[in-house]
Amino acid sequence: MQYPEPIAQLIDSYMKLPGIGQKSATRLAFFTIDMADDDVTAFSKALVSAKRDLHYCSICGNITESDPCAICADKTRDQSHVLVVEQAKDIMVMEKMKEYHGLYHVLHGVMSPIEGKGPEDLNITSLINRLQKNPDMKEVIIATNATPEGEATAMYLSRLIKPAGIKVTRLAHGLSVGSDIEYADEMTLFKAVEGRTEM
Amino acid sequence: MQYPEPIAQLIDSYMKLPGIGQKSATRLAFFTIDMADDDVTAFSKALVSAKRDLHYCSICGNITESDPCAICADKTRDQSHVLVVEQAKDIMVMEKMKEYHGLYHVLHGVMSPIEGKGPEDLNITSLINRLQKNPDMKEVIIATNATPEGEATAMYLSRLIKPAGIKVTRLAHGLSVGSDIEYADEMTLFKAVEGRTEM
Repeated sequence: MQYPEPIAQLIDSYMKLPGIGQKSATRLAFFTIDMADDDVTAFSKALVSAKRDLHYCSICGNITESDPCAICADKTRDQSHVLVVEQAKDIMVMEKMKEYHGLYHVLHGVMSPIEGKGPEDLNITSLINRLQKNPDMKEVIIATNATPEGEATAMYLSRLIKPAGIKVTRLAHGLSVGSDIEYADEMTLFKAVEGRTEM
Repeated sequence: MQYPEPIAQLIDSYMKLPGIGQKSATRLAFFTIDMADDDVTAFSKALVSAKRDLHYCSICGNITESDPCAICADKTRDQSHVLVVEQAKDIMVMEKMKEYHGLYHVLHGVMSPIEGKGPEDLNITSLINRLQKNPDMKEVIIATNATPEGEATAMYLSRLIKPAGIKVTRLAHGLSVGSDIEYADEMTLFKAVEGRTEM
């Protein structure tokens, strides 16, 4: 006794997604059968469209329909700052904050010896090219994640860019706003003390 | 600044799945963009196919491509036993056990006053019809979940079927095989003591 072919196929497909195992995939597949026709059709089309119509911006590596992306094409943005992120989705998080008006650059990952990823596997060459071509560039803000890999990548980039006379900064580490000191881990507390500011 | 339309659509679609919120949907959508072309195409087709090619068996309510389903159509199966489950996927769990060779019946849910679901919302009428039409029927095994709703539904079915002179049984409750008494909850322990068997 096997699942009918269409549902077995769908379970297989759901299992290809990150964090979804056999049981979750089965649950999702059975849920799909009970979904509205329109929703399933829209889902199916969105999958193909996302894969077919989206590309990486040739300048910054952001995900976009047009090339260059909306941010790179917007000449009203501050051309003297570039904020470097690991993933394209991090750009959206920064944009939601509404306080940064400069440019972005997406590395598409971080250096990770465990996964065998070195600087040559990241979108770094095009960053250096951008910096060299833009005489107005004043500051590179490195916004890689606060993980050992993110820190190492930030350090690497900083050593690469600083000699060109461009200021390199890193996002501050410290307590989350609204968080309790009691529940902060030691590393975060250490960073919060280290980076304390005068009142 | 918005997500490009194709990815916004895909995030919306992922959010329609159970247990997937905005953040998970965004993660899955960005993951999809990096998936292999073939996998995304297969996923897209599987969604449409599962919705289009699968139906409920008109006899037992199982999910199937053909009608009646493979189990109802198989005359070598024991026609004197019917096992009642909440969901079509529960049939697969039972079949994996390989020890039950009778028929099934899917309720498509349980009675739940909180959700406003009564017996009339379940696939019960067709169960009664099946029992009436089948003079060989000896036993109805109720395998609803061990939840208050599952118990109430089992009790309701039992009162409905017993007067017809058909034996009604319920799956045993007790300790999971391989589990530790230390970690069993009181209700399970009580059921295990109550249902103790002679050695």
